[in-house]
Amino acid sequence: MARLWDKGSPLDERVLRYTAGEDHQLDARLVPYDVAGSKAHASMLAAQGLISPDDAAAIGNGLDQLATGHARGEWSISLADEDVHTALESRLTALIGAAGGRLHLGRSRNDQVLTALRLYLKDACVALAGEAGAVTLALQRMITRQGSIALPGYTHLQQAMPSSVALWAEGYAEEIRDDAAGIEAAVRRLDRNPLGSAAGFGVPALPLDRSHTQRTLGFASIHAPVTAVQLSRGKAEAELTFQMLLLLNDLGRLASDLLLFYTREFSYVRLPESMTTGSSIMPQKRNPDVLELVRSAGAVAQGALNEIIAITAKLNAGYHRDLQRIKAPLFRTIDLTLESTAIVAQTLDGVEFIADNIVLDDGLYAAERANALVVKEGIPFREAYRRVAAEMKSEDE
Amino acid sequence: MARLWDKGSPLDERVLRYTAGEDHQLDARLVPYDVAGSKAHASMLAAQGLISPDDAAAIGNGLDQLATGHARGEWSISLADEDVHTALESRLTALIGAAGGRLHLGRSRNDQVLTALRLYLKDACVALAGEAGAVTLALQRMITRQGSIALPGYTHLQQAMPSSVALWAEGYAEEIRDDAAGIEAAVRRLDRNPLGSAAGFGVPALPLDRSHTQRTLGFASIHAPVTAVQLSRGKAEAELTFQMLLLLNDLGRLASDLLLFYTREFSYVRLPESMTTGSSIMPQKRNPDVLELVRSAGAVAQGALNEIIAITAKLNAGYHRDLQRIKAPLFRTIDLTLESTAIVAQTLDGVEFIADNIVLDDGLYAAERANALVVKEGIPFREAYRRVAAEMKSEDE
Amino acid sequence: MARLWDKGSPLDERVLRYTAGEDHQLDARLVPYDVAGSKAHASMLAAQGLISPDDAAAIGNGLDQLATGHARGEWSISLADEDVHTALESRLTALIGAAGGRLHLGRSRNDQVLTALRLYLKDACVALAGEAGAVTLALQRMITRQGSIALPGYTHLQQAMPSSVALWAEGYAEEIRDDAAGIEAAVRRLDRNPLGSAAGFGVPALPLDRSHTQRTLGFASIHAPVTAVQLSRGKAEAELTFQMLLLLNDLGRLASDLLLFYTREFSYVRLPESMTTGSSIMPQKRNPDVLELVRSAGAVAQGALNEIIAITAKLNAGYHRDLQRIKAPLFRTIDLTLESTAIVAQTLDGVEFIADNIVLDDGLYAAERANALVVKEGIPFREAYRRVAAEMKSEDE
Amino acid sequence: MARLWDKGSPLDERVLRYTAGEDHQLDARLVPYDVAGSKAHASMLAAQGLISPDDAAAIGNGLDQLATGHARGEWSISLADEDVHTALESRLTALIGAAGGRLHLGRSRNDQVLTALRLYLKDACVALAGEAGAVTLALQRMITRQGSIALPGYTHLQQAMPSSVALWAEGYAEEIRDDAAGIEAAVRRLDRNPLGSAAGFGVPALPLDRSHTQRTLGFASIHAPVTAVQLSRGKAEAELTFQMLLLLNDLGRLASDLLLFYTREFSYVRLPESMTTGSSIMPQKRNPDVLELVRSAGAVAQGALNEIIAITAKLNAGYHRDLQRIKAPLFRTIDLTLESTAIVAQTLDGVEFIADNIVLDDGLYAAERANALVVKEGIPFREAYRRVAAEMKSEDE
Repeated sequence: MARLWDKGSPLDERVLRYTAGEDHQLDARLVPYDVAGSKAHASMLAAQGLISPDDAAAIGNGLDQLATGHARGEWSISLADEDVHTALESRLTALIGAAGGRLHLGRSRNDQVLTALRLYLKDACVALAGEAGAVTLALQRMITRQGSIALPGYTHLQQAMPSSVALWAEGYAEEIRDDAAGIEAAVRRLDRNPLGSAAGFGVPALPLDRSHTQRTLGFASIHAPVTAVQLSRGKAEAELTFQMLLLLNDLGRLASDLLLFYTREFSYVRLPESMTTGSSIMPQKRNPDVLELVRSAGAVAQGALNEIIAITAKLNAGYHRDLQRIKAPLFRTIDLTLESTAIVAQTLDGVEFIADNIVLDDGLYAAERANALVVKEGIPFREAYRRVAAEMKSEDE
Repeated sequence: MARLWDKGSPLDERVLRYTAGEDHQLDARLVPYDVAGSKAHASMLAAQGLISPDDAAAIGNGLDQLATGHARGEWSISLADEDVHTALESRLTALIGAAGGRLHLGRSRNDQVLTALRLYLKDACVALAGEAGAVTLALQRMITRQGSIALPGYTHLQQAMPSSVALWAEGYAEEIRDDAAGIEAAVRRLDRNPLGSAAGFGVPALPLDRSHTQRTLGFASIHAPVTAVQLSRGKAEAELTFQMLLLLNDLGRLASDLLLFYTREFSYVRLPESMTTGSSIMPQKRNPDVLELVRSAGAVAQGALNEIIAITAKLNAGYHRDLQRIKAPLFRTIDLTLESTAIVAQTLDGVEFIADNIVLDDGLYAAERANALVVKEGIPFREAYRRVAAEMKSEDE
Repeated sequence: MARLWDKGSPLDERVLRYTAGEDHQLDARLVPYDVAGSKAHASMLAAQGLISPDDAAAIGNGLDQLATGHARGEWSISLADEDVHTALESRLTALIGAAGGRLHLGRSRNDQVLTALRLYLKDACVALAGEAGAVTLALQRMITRQGSIALPGYTHLQQAMPSSVALWAEGYAEEIRDDAAGIEAAVRRLDRNPLGSAAGFGVPALPLDRSHTQRTLGFASIHAPVTAVQLSRGKAEAELTFQMLLLLNDLGRLASDLLLFYTREFSYVRLPESMTTGSSIMPQKRNPDVLELVRSAGAVAQGALNEIIAITAKLNAGYHRDLQRIKAPLFRTIDLTLESTAIVAQTLDGVEFIADNIVLDDGLYAAERANALVVKEGIPFREAYRRVAAEMKSEDE
Repeated sequence: MARLWDKGSPLDERVLRYTAGEDHQLDARLVPYDVAGSKAHASMLAAQGLISPDDAAAIGNGLDQLATGHARGEWSISLADEDVHTALESRLTALIGAAGGRLHLGRSRNDQVLTALRLYLKDACVALAGEAGAVTLALQRMITRQGSIALPGYTHLQQAMPSSVALWAEGYAEEIRDDAAGIEAAVRRLDRNPLGSAAGFGVPALPLDRSHTQRTLGFASIHAPVTAVQLSRGKAEAELTFQMLLLLNDLGRLASDLLLFYTREFSYVRLPESMTTGSSIMPQKRNPDVLELVRSAGAVAQGALNEIIAITAKLNAGYHRDLQRIKAPLFRTIDLTLESTAIVAQTLDGVEFIADNIVLDDGLYAAERANALVVKEGIPFREAYRRVAAEMKSEDE
C-alpha cells in the first residue's frame, strides 16, 4: 500500500505530516502574498513607532530578496517548514537577524494566514474572470465564422424551433459572462483587511493602525469587529468555489452539446484533431477526451464546495485547525477552472459546424407561420396552427 | 408500505402523479406571481395590437378575481390541475370564455413558469434579508442588555484572549449582515425578464415588446439572448440556496455556541423556557431542542444545494422536464430559512448570560500586559511575555 | 409570502411547528411499526413480571384497534399530536385507561422511535429490492421481444464495436440487480434491536429482556452496547439512501440512453405514448417527460444523502434533536425510488427499437476480422488490423 | 498566478497536461497491480495458444523486473508516460522487444485499467479495515486502563444518565467495528474480474478464457455481461468512499467528544503532548490540532463522494474519459482514512481521563432509584419518580 502511515518513522514526523498536510506544496503560490502582507505590517509598525524605521527597511528588503529567490527557484517550502509563513519567517531571521523577530509584534498566525490568502484569492478572481472572458471571445469568433448556419432549437432534446449557431453560441456566451460577473462579485467577501484581528480578538494595549495596512494592501475596507474575521473563514472560499462551479457546469453543458453534435448520428461538428485522441483498437476513430474531461470538471468543483462547507459547519466561533483543510479543495478548483476555461477557448477555435449535415424538421417553422397568420387575420393561435399544420401536410404529399 | 406506486390506479393517473409531483402543493405561493406575469403579458399584447383592449381588460379582471378567490381559500390547485399555470388558465377560460385562450399568444409554458418563479424569488430575497436583519437586531438588544459581561475568547475551543458578550454577539451580527448582503446580491441573477423568450428560441413573426413586460413587472433588464434564458435555469436558484446555506450555517454556529454555553459544565447561559422542552424521564431537565434544530438546518440547505446543482449538471442546452425538480428543494430551503431566522431572533431575546459562572483564566491577560511592556520599554514581545509570565506566576503564589 | 413564520400565532404554537416539523405527516407510515414495537415491549414487560398479563393484553388490544382505525382513515396524526408516538400514546390511554401509561416503563422515546423506524426501513428495503427486480424483469421482456436487434456499442459516445439490444439491456439489468443486492445488504445495519437501550444508556435496576423483544420483532441481533445505539443514528439511513442513489443513477443513465435514442437524429426507439406528453405549441411533438424526470431522480437522492450525512457530522455522542431531521430526506428518497422504479418498468414495456434506423459503421467489424486473422495466421494484432483496414477500404470503393 | 495554463508551452503539451492530469503521480501505487493483471493476461493468452509460452515467460519476467525496479525507485512514471499502463508498456517493449507488443491482444485499455484498480482497492479495503481495527484495540486498551471511571451520559449535551469511560469507549468501538464491516462488504462490488470485457463489448473471434484470469488474480467471479463492466464504473468507488466517510465521521464525533472534554470548562481529559501543538502567543497553552484535523477529515470524504457520484451521473452507457477523474478523490480519501485511523489510535493511547474533574449530577441516579421502587412496590414509574425526586430534594437539604 502506498503512502500508508509509515510506522517506522518517528512520531513527531508522523504528526507533522498529518498536521502540515500538503501545505508545503499548496503554499508556493502564497509566497508573494505573504511577503506583501508582512511588508505592510512592518511598515505600519514603523509608522506607529512600534519598530524602528531601520528594522522595517531591513524586513522589507529581506522579504523582497526571499520572494525573488523563491520565484527563481532558489528555495522552496519543505515539509519541515510546515507552511509558507514559517518558511519565510525562519529564512528572514537567518537573513537579517533579530529584526526578523520583531515583525510578529501585534500579529497572530491567524490574521497573517488570512491576509495572504485573501490577497491571492483577489488576484485569482481577476484571472478567473479573465479566462471566462476568453471563452466568450472564442464564442464570438465562432459566431463570426459560422454564426449564420441554421441549427434546430431543442427542447426535451427534441427539435422544437429554428435556431442558429449564433443563437446557440450567444446563449452560452451570455451565461459565461454572467458566471464571470459572479466570480467578480465574490471579491466582495475577500476585500476586507483581516490584519489587526490577530487571533480573532484583536491586539490589546498596542496602538495598531488597521487602516494603514488596509490602504497599503488595497483592501476595500477593514474587517470588523475582530471576532467576525475568523467566523467568516470558509464563506468567501465557499462563495468563490460556488461561482467556479456555476462556470464549470456551464462549460460542462457546452461540452455536452458538442459531444452530442460530434456523434456519428448527429455529425453536426468536426472537432480539432489536437483536442481528440486516437483509439488503439480503431485507428480511424478519434475520441473527444478533452471535452469529456471538461464535462466532468464541474464534479470536482461540486465535491470541493461540499468539502469546504462541511469543514466549517457547526464549529464553535473562533479559530480551529479544521480551517486549514479549506485550502486544498479551493486551490484544486481554481487550478482546474483556469485550465478548463483555457482549453475550452482553444477547442472552440477549432470546432467546425458542418452545415450540410444539419437538417431542420419542416415542422419547426409551423409556429412562425401560425403567428404570421394570427397577425394577418386576427384569428386565435390554435386555429392558425391547425391551418398551417394542414397546409404543411398537403405540401408534403 | 405507504405511498407505494398504486398498482390499482389507472396508468394515466400514475403518470400524472409522477410528472406533476408535488407541484400542486408547491405552487400555491405562486398564484399572485403568475397572475402578475399573465396580466403584464396581456397588457403588452394589447399595446402591440395583438389582442383587443377589451380582451386584455377581461383577462386582467378575471385573473384578479381568481387571485382574490385563492387568497380567500375559495379554491386551491389540485393534482388534476397539475400546476398553478394550468389551474389559472382553465379557471380563467371558465370565467371569461374565449378571451382566456388569447392570453397564450406569443408565450410558452417555459417563459411563463420562469416569470412567476423569478417574481416570487425576488420577494423571497427581500423577506429573507429582512428576517436576517431581525436576528442582528436581536443580537443588538442582547448587547444592550448584557454586552459588557466578560467572556473568554476561544481558539481551538481553548480560552485564549479576553472577550465579551458584546464582541461575541457583534461578530455574529456582522456575519449575518454579510449573509443578508449575499442574499440581496442574489437578486442580480433573478432580475431579468424572461417573458418573450417563449420556449427558449423567441417568438418568430410576432411583434412582441419585451421591454413592456419588463417595465410592468419591475425587472431590471431583459434576459437576452432568448437562448440564455433556459440555459440559466438552476443558477439563480442555486445561488439563492447557497446564500441561504451560508446564513443557516452561521445560525448553526451561533446555536452550537449557545448549546455549549448551556451545558452544565459551562453554565454560561440560561435559555428561555419556551425554547426548551421537558424530558419525560427527568422532569427537572430542560432540553434545548429548538437550538439543536437550528444547528442542523444548514444540513437541509446543503442537501438542497446539491439537489439543484445535480439537476442541471451536464444537461444539453434547452428546456428539459428535469428542471421542474428545482422547485421542491428551493422552496423547502426558503421556508426553513424564514422559520429558522424568526425562531433564532425570538430565542436570542430570552438568552441570559450568567456573569457569575463565567471565569476567565488569568493567563488571558498576559498578552495585553506583554504588549504594554513592549510599548513602554521597547523590548521584543517574547522577552516581555517571559517577564509577564514570571510575574503572573509569582502573583499566583 | 406563503408559510412565513406567522407572527400572529401564539409562541407555543410556533415553537411546536418548528420542532415538530412535518413529523405528523411523515409518521403516518410508521403507525403499524410503532404498534408492533409497543406490543413487543408490553409483552416483554409482562414476561418479566413488570406489568400484569391483563395490562399487556389491554395494551395489545388497544394498539391493534388504533392501528386498524388508522388504516381505515378513522384518525390521523395531527400537528398537535407532534408525532406518531405521542399520537398513539394519548389515544391508547384514552382507550384503555391507566394501563396505557404502564407501557412506558423501561423505555425511552429514543429507543421507541428507532425501533419503529428500523422495522419500517426493513420492509422498505424488501419493497425497494422488489421494485428494482421488476425493472430487470422488464429488461428481460425487452430482450425477449427485441434482443437480437443490432446496436452499435459506444465508447466516448462514438460507435466502437458491434453490440445488440440484448447486450445493452442485460448490462443495465446486471447493474440494477447489483443495486438491489446493495439495498438488501443495507439491512445489515438495520437488523439490530434498539429496544432496551432507552435514552442511550440502558435501563438501570429493571430486569429487561432485550432478546425477548428482539425475537418478537424479528431483529437479527441486539444492538449493544447501549451507547452504540444513538451513535449509529444516521448511518443505516445514509447507507440505504446511498444504495438508492446508486440505483436511481443507474436508472438515470438508462433514461439518458433512451432519451438519446429518442432524438430525431438517432431515431432508434419509439416511446409509449402514455409516457410522453404533448406540446402546446407543436401538437405533433411528443416530449419524453417521464424519462427526463427519471434522469433527474438521482439528484434528489444525492441531495438527501448530503442532508443526512451533514445532520450527524461532528455531533457529540448521545441523542440530539438534530436527528429528527433525518426522516424527511430518507422518506422522500424511498418514495421517489419506489415510484421511479415502477414507472421505468412500465415504460420499458412500451419501448420499441426501430431496427431499420440503426446503422452500424462497417469499421465496427474490423477488430473482429483482425482478431480472426491473428488466430488464423499467428501475426501480431496491429499488422492484422492494418490488413483488414486496407481490405475494408478497397471493399468500399 | 501559479500553475496557470502556460501559454508559452506547445499545444500538445498543454493538452497532455489537461488529459493526463495527475495520473502519473496517482498511478505509482498501481504498478504492482498492473503488473499482476498483465501477467495474468499473458498467462491466459499462452494457455489459449494465442501467444507462445516463451513470449509469456518473457513478458512475466520483464514485468517482474520493472516492478522491482519501480519499488526500488529506479524509475517512476512521468507526465510523458501519461499513466502507469503506458509507462509499463513502453518500458516492457524496450526491455524484451516485440513480445511486449503481443501482450495487448484481446485486451483494451478499459479492462486493463479497471483490473489494476480493483486489485489495488481490494488490498486497500483490507488495510482500511485493519486500521479501523487498530482504533478499536486502542479503545479496548483505554477501557482496560480507565474504563471504570464514571462519566455522565449525555443527551442534548445535557447530563442525563450515569455512564462510564467503558461505556463511552465501547460505543465508539462497536460503531467503528461496524464501519470496518462496511468497508469489508464493499469488496463485493470489487471482486469481479473485468478482464475480457475489453472496451466494454467483449473480444469477438478470440478464444479468451475469462475464468483463467479470474482464478489467477483471485477475483470471486467474472463480471458479466461485458456491457455491465463499464456501466459499473464509479459504483464500487463510490461505495468504498461512502464507507470510509462513515468511518471518518465516527472518528470525527470521537474527536468532537475529546475536544469538548479537553476544554478548560470540562477538563475531563489530558491529551498526549505529542498530539497537541504550542501557541506562539500563549506558551502555556497546548492546542489539540490533531483532533481538530480528525474532526474535519470526514468533510474531505463527503466532498470526494459527491465528486465521484457527480462524475458518472447521467452519462450514457459505455466508457467515457470522464471516468478518469474518479481516481483522484478516491485515492485522496483512502490515504486520509489510513492516516487518520493511525493517528487516532496513537492519540487514544495517550488520552487520560481525570476522574477528579468529572462530576455527575445527583439527579442522574433518580431514574435508577425510581425503577427499583417500581420493581419493589409495583407502583407506576411516574409515581415512583415523584417520590424519588422528593427524597433526593430532602437529602440535599
